[in-house]
Amino acid sequence: MKILLVFAHPEPRSLNGALRDVAVAELKAQGHEVQISDLHAQGWKSQIDRADFPALAPDARFDPSAASAAAFADGGLTADVKAEQDKLLWADVLILQFPLWWFTMPAILKGWVDRVYAYGFAYGVGEHSNTRWGDRYGEGTFAGKRAMLIVTTGGWEEHYSARGINGPIDDLLFPIQHGILFYPGYEVLPPFVSYRVQRLDAAGFAQEAERLRERMRTLASTTPLPFRRQNGGDYLIPGMQLRPGLGAQDTTGFALHLDDGSEPA
Amino acid sequence: MKILLVFAHPEPRSLNGALRDVAVAELKAQGHEVQISDLHAQGWKSQIDRADFPALAPDARFDPSAASAAAFADGGLTADVKAEQDKLLWADVLILQFPLWWFTMPAILKGWVDRVYAYGFAYGVGEHSNTRWGDRYGEGTFAGKRAMLIVTTGGWEEHYSARGINGPIDDLLFPIQHGILFYPGYEVLPPFVSYRVQRLDAAGFAQEAERLRERMRTLASTTPLPFRRQNGGDYLIPGMQLRPGLGAQDTTGFALHLDDGSEPA
Repeated sequence: MKILLVFAHPEPRSLNGALRDVAVAELKAQGHEVQISDLHAQGWKSQIDRADFPALAPDARFDPSAASAAAFADGGLTADVKAEQDKLLWADVLILQFPLWWFTMPAILKGWVDRVYAYGFAYGVGEHSNTRWGDRYGEGTFAGKRAMLIVTTGGWEEHYSARGINGPIDDLLFPIQHGILFYPGYEVLPPFVSYRVQRLDAAGFAQEAERLRERMRTLASTTPLPFRRQNGGDYLIPGMQLRPGLGAQDTTGFALHLDDGSEPA
Repeated sequence: MKILLVFAHPEPRSLNGALRDVAVAELKAQGHEVQISDLHAQGWKSQIDRADFPALAPDARFDPSAASAAAFADGGLTADVKAEQDKLLWADVLILQFPLWWFTMPAILKGWVDRVYAYGFAYGVGEHSNTRWGDRYGEGTFAGKRAMLIVTTGGWEEHYSARGINGPIDDLLFPIQHGILFYPGYEVLPPFVSYRVQRLDAAGFAQEAERLRERMRTLASTTPLPFRRQNGGDYLIPGMQLRPGLGAQDTTGFALHLDDGSEPA
């Protein structure tokens, strides 16, 4: 398979750098082709602004999504953005690797999403009707591809557990896994999360590295998270609310959007 | 009161720009002092990198949180970061205003958090013991101050409702409201969220503007979200899990961390 790993840590000699090297070595050993987008090494520009849309008239009002739609349609996106889009189209599997900063991705990686995910490419795709609401949440440009997160945090696993003070890690990652990966069509594999990384000794690192190698060996066979497809019948259109009866009676919040086998009332 | 509004939209002639002007005019009419951090206008640097820590030796391994701790302790942070910290210390109320992009804040605002929230300033504050786990989640540098979000989205309110496909807006904003605002001590007011902003006509704008003015008039009197204080007795230390019995039996996910009046078992 072809794998794109987007790496968002500023220091190659970090735990993140070491884990990246472990993942890439294992992927290559398995015969996969790998490309890396090392955002800091590339000098990635984080913020969307007028400079991203050279065709925009200097005195025109700047509407980011309208400008994105026009530039994507006309081939007028900047070269750095086009190069990342080409890698996404090339790859069978996308891996986003980052340290969890303030309970989400670092700014530079958010800026990769904000800029590369153009209108017409990752959103604004497909037709709207009584039975479909665009190609999104399980359909779209990346349908048939897989994605997963590799995340490190200094915090304790207990603090990110179901009743932990930070909130459950699955909930914290939901806006990324559901809203950034599943939205444009990726099947999302369970995340690889490494906790208390500041305290990791050599034995601890060896254990995490082996756990990561195993995830890299099973990229093709791991069962994706069972996010519900938008146009698969579970949601009312156009209100896009989950049909009555779906989701256990006591389920609230993000967990509703995982298919639990329940049937509409 | 003194108000800091951090504004993260690239176009002043946008709906966000118009709402900002409405908010600021109302705040001034109420006699408040207002400062604005207009991140795009300031040319804010989004990503954390070595350039943020001039004292770091060129060949030293770059550990962002260690570098942040050292620079904050030595007064060695860059001038742009220090200026934002000074504004935060000055302000009684912090308002973060942004368009919701990919279910969270734009990169430039995340980069404001990543860079301004230094170790020793917004995290890494306070002592750890058997009864306290640092000054965070309701305690810390900003204790006694208030904060709120002003958020715009192109999406429908139904799509962000309790059973909406995007996930409930309160859950999507939890990592920001609980993890970025409550964490360093702010009392967090309910967010102001404006939906379907691409479709807003003059009457719709007038309605949203008045709703926002009312929120600006009631900044001091609005009841904050009842997030549970970390060191208030609801959490087990050091595992930081909510004590058994707290939270209704059928509550899961982020909602657990709102005080519902239940007592430990």
